Amino acid sequence: MKRFLLRCLHCGKEYDPSEVEYTCPHCGDRMGTLEIVYDPDYLKKTIKKEHYEEFSPKGIWQFEELLPIRENGWRPPLLVGNTPLYDSTNLAGKLGVGKIFIKDDGRNPTASFKDRASAVAVAKAVEKGYDTLFCASTGNAASSLSGLCAASGLESYIFVPASAPTAKLTQLQVYGANVIPIDGSYDEAFDISMKIGLKENWYCRNSAINPYLLEGKKTGALEMAVQLNWKLPDFVFVSVGDGTVLSSFYKGFMDLKEAKLIDKMPTVVGVQAEGADAVIRAYEKGEPFEPEDISAFSVADSISVGKPRDFLKACLYTKRNNGLFVRVSDEEILDSIIELAKTTGVFAEPAGATAFAGFKKLHRKGLFTDSTRVAIVITGNGLKDLKAPLKILKSLKKVPANLDRVREAIKNDS
Amino acid sequence: MKRFLLRCLHCGKEYDPSEVEYTCPHCGDRMGTLEIVYDPDYLKKTIKKEHYEEFSPKGIWQFEELLPIRENGWRPPLLVGNTPLYDSTNLAGKLGVGKIFIKDDGRNPTASFKDRASAVAVAKAVEKGYDTLFCASTGNAASSLSGLCAASGLESYIFVPASAPTAKLTQLQVYGANVIPIDGSYDEAFDISMKIGLKENWYCRNSAINPYLLEGKKTGALEMAVQLNWKLPDFVFVSVGDGTVLSSFYKGFMDLKEAKLIDKMPTVVGVQAEGADAVIRAYEKGEPFEPEDISAFSVADSISVGKPRDFLKACLYTKRNNGLFVRVSDEEILDSIIELAKTTGVFAEPAGATAFAGFKKLHRKGLFTDSTRVAIVITGNGLKDLKAPLKILKSLKKVPANLDRVREAIKNDS
Repeated sequence: MKRFLLRCLHCGKEYDPSEVEYTCPHCGDRMGTLEIVYDPDYLKKTIKKEHYEEFSPKGIWQFEELLPIRENGWRPPLLVGNTPLYDSTNLAGKLGVGKIFIKDDGRNPTASFKDRASAVAVAKAVEKGYDTLFCASTGNAASSLSGLCAASGLESYIFVPASAPTAKLTQLQVYGANVIPIDGSYDEAFDISMKIGLKENWYCRNSAINPYLLEGKKTGALEMAVQLNWKLPDFVFVSVGDGTVLSSFYKGFMDLKEAKLIDKMPTVVGVQAEGADAVIRAYEKGEPFEPEDISAFSVADSISVGKPRDFLKACLYTKRNNGLFVRVSDEEILDSIIELAKTTGVFAEPAGATAFAGFKKLHRKGLFTDSTRVAIVITGNGLKDLKAPLKILKSLKKVPANLDRVREAIKNDS
Repeated sequence: MKRFLLRCLHCGKEYDPSEVEYTCPHCGDRMGTLEIVYDPDYLKKTIKKEHYEEFSPKGIWQFEELLPIRENGWRPPLLVGNTPLYDSTNLAGKLGVGKIFIKDDGRNPTASFKDRASAVAVAKAVEKGYDTLFCASTGNAASSLSGLCAASGLESYIFVPASAPTAKLTQLQVYGANVIPIDGSYDEAFDISMKIGLKENWYCRNSAINPYLLEGKKTGALEMAVQLNWKLPDFVFVSVGDGTVLSSFYKGFMDLKEAKLIDKMPTVVGVQAEGADAVIRAYEKGEPFEPEDISAFSVADSISVGKPRDFLKACLYTKRNNGLFVRVSDEEILDSIIELAKTTGVFAEPAGATAFAGFKKLHRKGLFTDSTRVAIVITGNGLKDLKAPLKILKSLKKVPANLDRVREAIKNDS
């Protein structure tokens, strides 16, 4: 066996990397999701704890022997990963839980977890000889792809619904992406992107289609393991939209287990917004897992997905590893942004705080004791959506520029 | 001599750290700026190159022996510093300059360089027994202080002009700061903050007053030196509002020279917006340097300062080290945001891109050759001000959700 092969999660057929580009030709784009499978002997022989450090000048590329890319190949020149994992004694003390670790992935180059996937996409595209990449997204995947392409001297085409907020489009334009605002839904933009992108021979950075992206995201789990000196937490909370980030945490831990660097999987908990719970619905219906498309709405726009395109891996990995799912309300998400920022200094976008809201929900149910160790993944920076917390913050009252009046205002407020 | 003392830049009088809190009692707040002076023997004996690494799990605290704080004291639990320094071959090749290094300080915890100062302020406040800090600011200093206080379980009071943009106030409120919007100018907010803060016995995080803050900012220069393996660039570009960030780069390099870790100072270049050039005006008038207050306006709000409160150090250090100043227009600043993002993948706020605009200006004058090495300090993340680049970006045109029409639009655009 070579270092890795690709396996269809639906029919089980295996492919050499040279045989397929994105999905299983037999099962199609929606069901034929491919998984990267490493040779177990290679993993056991090659992957050693001492190869990795808590913070590396290489960022995620310190893990390249655990990634399906050519070793010592070309890499995009932005530092991806190396994000801090905080041991929040404030939160743990307040909530009576043993340890609460906060992984702040909003500190990536374009301020979201998605940079981990875009970095691998860009490296893979160059390895395969592409000079242009595309995706359909209004959010973090798009800004991430355009930022990494800019740094790499590559072209990017971003297909977005024209209704996307100006602030999100601004970031793409600043990076010099070709932005195509389509007067239609996200699903229409997605389908058009696939037709044009493949015809034009651009490399596809749609997570649900491209199996290499999850491997990039997996580095979040690998970094967490190194930063905790391989002593993984009991629970890891991750927010879920399409399902790829959730799957990537399972995949990272599974690969480490296969390589014998860890003994036991943590319980990974996928958290969805109540109004955008399509993956949980598919999971709850049971096997064989089938897509459950809904009309989604949540304040957490990054995970407000009605037609999840990567649900299969998320459901199968959760099942295989006895994972959990939990739903939270928009109100719980908004409250979580504030509580997280006030107690840890980490300002999360709504989708990032969703993982914390899920933890709080299970905490209220009494699942954790003072010896439980929990990690919460913050997938995006709060600066990406300054409007969300305004929905619950009290409005500020002006004070006249007079010493006594200011003193009085401070006294009345405290 | 103890490890360090404080010296008044105006009258030259020296103080033990226990004798003064903020400024020289003889010269007052505006002129009596204090400077931290380390014992030269201590520096030469203690400070060794091999103590420091390119990225440290400690962030800026890896430099604690070069900081005026108690060693092994309490530290705020956010990872400050450790920001990447990119060697941009894209830019260097395009502009025919030997090396162009981009220091991306927008990747600090609250997304600006100011976290370096707030971290030291918070450590110092705890060392001195304070539980509350205050500042007058609408910008990065305020969000930085409130974020670091939140993580540290300390109270923060932020005095702002009520006209400050909602987005900036939101970040403060999310971190749980006590925000006091004063119906008046920044100068009124500043004066009121000083009167109330000192009376209430809160610790002052106004950069112009507190000499310890510059020492925190100095870690940007120290990190740069380590990341370049002590081979400093010929020029370092820094944007200038009040003047503290500029002074901090001089101070960092001067301390390294005193410690014999570097032989030669780089030429530090301070860049101001044409409409907010009060520090340059004071400098051009010559010694004795006196404040030159103007009515400032610039698109780069973080450096739009009309009454700079830390001009003296900036002028004296520039003079002492044969530094340079340069002015740039708002148009040049906006263009720089886009060019920087498109070629390096680093999205800067206007004040951050100002340093790059200054470099471009001197580049056009033919100051650099293909063997010149230049570093540009990006002091804040572009997500802090998404409105600025919109002023020059072309507006996007919707395309109907139809394959042929989208193809046509892409063809016409390229």
